[in-house]
Amino acid sequence: MSGEYPEALEALAEQLGKLPGIGRRTAERLAMALLEWDQEELETLGGRISRLRQEVHTCKICGNLADGEHCRICLAPSRDRQAVCVVEHARQVPVIEQCGRFHGLYHVLGGRLSPLDGIEIGDLNVNSLYVRIAEQHVQEIILATSPDVEGEATASYLAEELQKRFSITVSRIALGVPVGSDLSFADAATMAMAIDTRRQL
Amino acid sequence: MSGEYPEALEALAEQLGKLPGIGRRTAERLAMALLEWDQEELETLGGRISRLRQEVHTCKICGNLADGEHCRICLAPSRDRQAVCVVEHARQVPVIEQCGRFHGLYHVLGGRLSPLDGIEIGDLNVNSLYVRIAEQHVQEIILATSPDVEGEATASYLAEELQKRFSITVSRIALGVPVGSDLSFADAATMAMAIDTRRQL
Repeated sequence: MSGEYPEALEALAEQLGKLPGIGRRTAERLAMALLEWDQEELETLGGRISRLRQEVHTCKICGNLADGEHCRICLAPSRDRQAVCVVEHARQVPVIEQCGRFHGLYHVLGGRLSPLDGIEIGDLNVNSLYVRIAEQHVQEIILATSPDVEGEATASYLAEELQKRFSITVSRIALGVPVGSDLSFADAATMAMAIDTRRQL
Repeated sequence: MSGEYPEALEALAEQLGKLPGIGRRTAERLAMALLEWDQEELETLGGRISRLRQEVHTCKICGNLADGEHCRICLAPSRDRQAVCVVEHARQVPVIEQCGRFHGLYHVLGGRLSPLDGIEIGDLNVNSLYVRIAEQHVQEIILATSPDVEGEATASYLAEELQKRFSITVSRIALGVPVGSDLSFADAATMAMAIDTRRQL
């Protein structure tokens, strides 16, 4: 903004503009929209933002986001405790939950191997995974790191390490052409993977 | 969200989802992004939102948004006090400011005539405009209400009323095909207006 708005509004728009996908113009529009909210709503939103880090915790078992010490998934008696799905970030847990096909537990690495960013295996939440496998009756580890270079490297490393240490099943989520997509637009790497890992029917 | 996120995060996403153009998925994404902000930044944003209505005022002269009693435009000695541009909402002032062609003052109606919504002339900030014209040396009123049915009705009403009450110039912003647009995509109503109000060169 270039001086057309009151300072408080400019300052708010500047903060909002730091959010991903919120450009300058959108931030201004949102700030103007907030100006039409009533006081109670503004305080509710403002308070929730201010207290966010105090109110959201990390599960001491799996590293997922939690209301308290443990996340809802680790606490749910209905979950299958023999299968653990390994993801990079807590934000990926809901993506898997929403597909409705996995009923086990999770383990959040808190990142992935990335030599360029100086992230090594010691920086990831891996030892606690080994402890969980050793102490609980885990039968299968599903590696659900992202299908890019670093995610694949992390999955390869873990697969090797897990098979060396434990006699459990280690699996990797399928990579291939997305369901519902038009094959004409599949990229070469994805298409190659879909051919290489084809399933016999 | 369907229970995959901690309560504080769900509650925050729900609030964010009330903003215009922010759908459920975007609200979730923004809430997750906020979780990675540090405490100080969260409190800055939260505080600004909570205090927004206390910190943004309405100009007692023109109805524009203001830091204090009067807006920056009314306070600026450089503005041309003989021309007043009438807009429906304060959010439209920056749009005109940004074009850089108007150096006068504004008057914010706070809405427009809308019989269906029960908004009549008495609900608009019109009497204070008459007082301004009578007491200051206003020479021209530019009607910059929106070019839709209600905005046009408001402009027509004001034009008639102003010409009856004062001997001043009353003008209307030009309506026509947008600069830089492709004429192939102009809608019929806009095209008709562009023909009807063509300027002789």
